[in-house]
Amino acid sequence: MNPQGRTISRRAVLSALAVLPTVSSPFFPVAAPAQAAAPDDPLPSWNEGPARQAITTFVKETTDQASPKFVPVAERIATFDQDGTLWVEHPIYSQVVYCLDRVPAVVAKRPELKAVEPFKTVLSGNREAIAKLSLRDLEKILFATLSGMSVTQFQAEAQKWLETAKHPRWNRPYTDLTYQPMLEVLHYLRDNGFKTYIVTGGGQDFVRIYSEKVYGIPPEQVVGTAGATKYGYGHDGKPLLTKEPKLVLNDDNAGKPEGIHLMIGRRPYAAFGNSTGDREMLEYTSAGDGARLAMIVLHDDAQREYAYGPTQGLPATKVGTFTQELYDEAKQKSWTIISMKKDWRRIFAFEQ
Amino acid sequence: MNPQGRTISRRAVLSALAVLPTVSSPFFPVAAPAQAAAPDDPLPSWNEGPARQAITTFVKETTDQASPKFVPVAERIATFDQDGTLWVEHPIYSQVVYCLDRVPAVVAKRPELKAVEPFKTVLSGNREAIAKLSLRDLEKILFATLSGMSVTQFQAEAQKWLETAKHPRWNRPYTDLTYQPMLEVLHYLRDNGFKTYIVTGGGQDFVRIYSEKVYGIPPEQVVGTAGATKYGYGHDGKPLLTKEPKLVLNDDNAGKPEGIHLMIGRRPYAAFGNSTGDREMLEYTSAGDGARLAMIVLHDDAQREYAYGPTQGLPATKVGTFTQELYDEAKQKSWTIISMKKDWRRIFAFEQ
Repeated sequence: MNPQGRTISRRAVLSALAVLPTVSSPFFPVAAPAQAAAPDDPLPSWNEGPARQAITTFVKETTDQASPKFVPVAERIATFDQDGTLWVEHPIYSQVVYCLDRVPAVVAKRPELKAVEPFKTVLSGNREAIAKLSLRDLEKILFATLSGMSVTQFQAEAQKWLETAKHPRWNRPYTDLTYQPMLEVLHYLRDNGFKTYIVTGGGQDFVRIYSEKVYGIPPEQVVGTAGATKYGYGHDGKPLLTKEPKLVLNDDNAGKPEGIHLMIGRRPYAAFGNSTGDREMLEYTSAGDGARLAMIVLHDDAQREYAYGPTQGLPATKVGTFTQELYDEAKQKSWTIISMKKDWRRIFAFEQ
Repeated sequence: MNPQGRTISRRAVLSALAVLPTVSSPFFPVAAPAQAAAPDDPLPSWNEGPARQAITTFVKETTDQASPKFVPVAERIATFDQDGTLWVEHPIYSQVVYCLDRVPAVVAKRPELKAVEPFKTVLSGNREAIAKLSLRDLEKILFATLSGMSVTQFQAEAQKWLETAKHPRWNRPYTDLTYQPMLEVLHYLRDNGFKTYIVTGGGQDFVRIYSEKVYGIPPEQVVGTAGATKYGYGHDGKPLLTKEPKLVLNDDNAGKPEGIHLMIGRRPYAAFGNSTGDREMLEYTSAGDGARLAMIVLHDDAQREYAYGPTQGLPATKVGTFTQELYDEAKQKSWTIISMKKDWRRIFAFEQ
C-alpha cells in the first residue's frame, strides 16, 4: 500500500521491473491497413465484430426512450480503468517510472538518503539492480516521492515530467500512448449522455493532471488510489494542502467498487478493464438490472502493442494480469473481450 | 469519529441534545411580507442588500468573457455546507434523529443490546436521559445504526424514514425545511455554468439519498463524512457493498478542504457555510486567485427560524457553532455575512 501510488501486487511489481531492461530500444510499429470509415461513424477505429456491436447495441438500448432498457441521463455512468485499458501499461506503469525519476530530486533535498537503500540503488542507474528491488523498497520510494510536498507543488512537478518523459519503445510522451479506439468510445458515450469516469489503481492526483486534456475527463471524474492530504498554512499564511504518506483509498480489485461507491455513489452501467484488478468493478457493474456493458481489453497484438494474457501462452505475472480465471469468468458472465488485434483498426492516433 | 455519521464536537452534541426537550411544540411562523419580484429575477426570495449584491456581482465577473476575472466553465465549482446553510439544523441534526429513531430496529435484530447502555436509555424514550448521553455513547449509537447493512438496505431504510419523520416545530418532513433563497442560489449558479456540490459534515450516504430530488445535486456531487464499505457477495452470489464501522473521510473543519481535494480535485470559486466547521473550506476557497465568493449564513431570525451565533448574545455551544472568532475572520477577509432576517424575503417554499 502506498500513498497516491500504484496499488501493486508483489508479482506485478517485480515482473514489471524485470521487464525493464528488455525494451530499451525504440521501435516503430507498422500501422494496420487503414480502411475508409463512414463519415458519421462514431467508432472509426473499430473493426466490425462482436466488441463493436456490443458497444453500439448498449448505447441504443439505454438511450432509446422506447426501449425497455432505457436509462435516464442522470444515471448514465460509465467507468474505465486506465493502465492497459485507455493507454499503454507495458513495460511498467508510467507512474512508477515517474517515482523512480523523482528520486534524484528527493535526494537533493534530503542528502541523508543518498547512502541509504533503496535510494542508493536507484541513483546507481543499474537497471538490473533496480529490477531486483523488493516491494517494500518500492513502497519506500513511492512514499518519499509522492508525499511531503503541497498538492500544488506535486502537480507542477508531475506536469513537467509528463511533458518531457518518453516511452522507451515509441520515444513519445506517455500521454501520446492512449488507445484511439477507446478515446472514440469515451466520446461516443459522452455524446449519448453518459458521464465517463476513470477508475484506476494509479494515483488519483497523478491522473487528474492530464485526464481532461488527454481523455476529456475532468479531475472530479477521476477515481484513483488516493493518499490523505493535510490542511495547513504556508509561510505566507495562505492555506495549503500537503500530501501525506497515508492511504485513504486503495483503488484496485475490491477497492474499485468501494471507490465507485465513495466517489460516485451510483452503480455504473458500463465498465471497461483489462486485468484482474478490474474484476470486481466488472462484476459490480454487470450485476445491476437492465442493460449493462462489461468489456475487457485483451492485449494480443505484439506487433502493434504488446501481447500478454491467458490466450497468449504467457505466464500471468506481468503488469496488467489477465488470468485464465478472469477469462473464464468473463465468458461465463457474457462480458465482451476486446481483441486489440482483431477489433482495433488502429491503436494510436499518431498512426495514419 | 463515526462512520457515515455527523462529525460532532462534544460541545455541539451535548448542547444539541440538551435543546431537544424545549422545542417539542409545533410553531408556524408568520411569513415576511412578500414583495413582488421582477419576473426574470433569479433570486426572488432575496432582498436588495450586500449579500444579494455579492452573489450577482460574482456571477457577472466570472461568466463575462470580457471580465478579467472570467472563469472557464470547467473550473466553475461552488460548494455548499448543508446543515444550517441549505436546511434547518436546529434543534438537532436530522441524521442524529434518524440514528436515535433507528435504535429499536437495531435492537430487534440484536436483542442482546436491549439491556445494554446507551441503547437502554434510548429505548426508554426519556428525553432528559437521552440528552445526557456522552459523546462516546452517541458514537456507539451511530456505529450500530449506520453500519453492518448493505448500502442498498441503508438507502431503503433511510429513504423510508425521510418520508415519514417530521420536524417537531413545523410538523413537516425535514426535506421541506430547505431554505428557498439558497435553492435559488443553487439554480442561479447552475444556470451560469457552475457545478454545485454539497460539502457536509453529515453522512455522505445519507445526504445522497435526497440530494438530487431536494437540491438538484446528483449523488456524485455530494461530499460528506464517509465510512468504508466492504465488497463481498450475498447469499445469491451477487456482489454487494456492506457499510463498515470505519471512517474514511471526516468531512468537517480541515476535513472539508481535504474532502474537496479528494472528491473534486479543484479549488472552489464559491463556498457557502454557516459555522466554524466551514471555516477551512471558506479560507481555502477565498485564498484562490481571481473572483472568489465566501458567504456565511447568520441565523438571526428567531421568529421565522432560529437565532444563534455571535451577534445573538447566545453562547457559542449550539449546533452550528458560529463563534465571534469566525465572525471576526469573516470581516477581516471580506467574506459576506448573510442575515436571514434582513437578506431573506422568505425562508421556506411553503411560506406564501
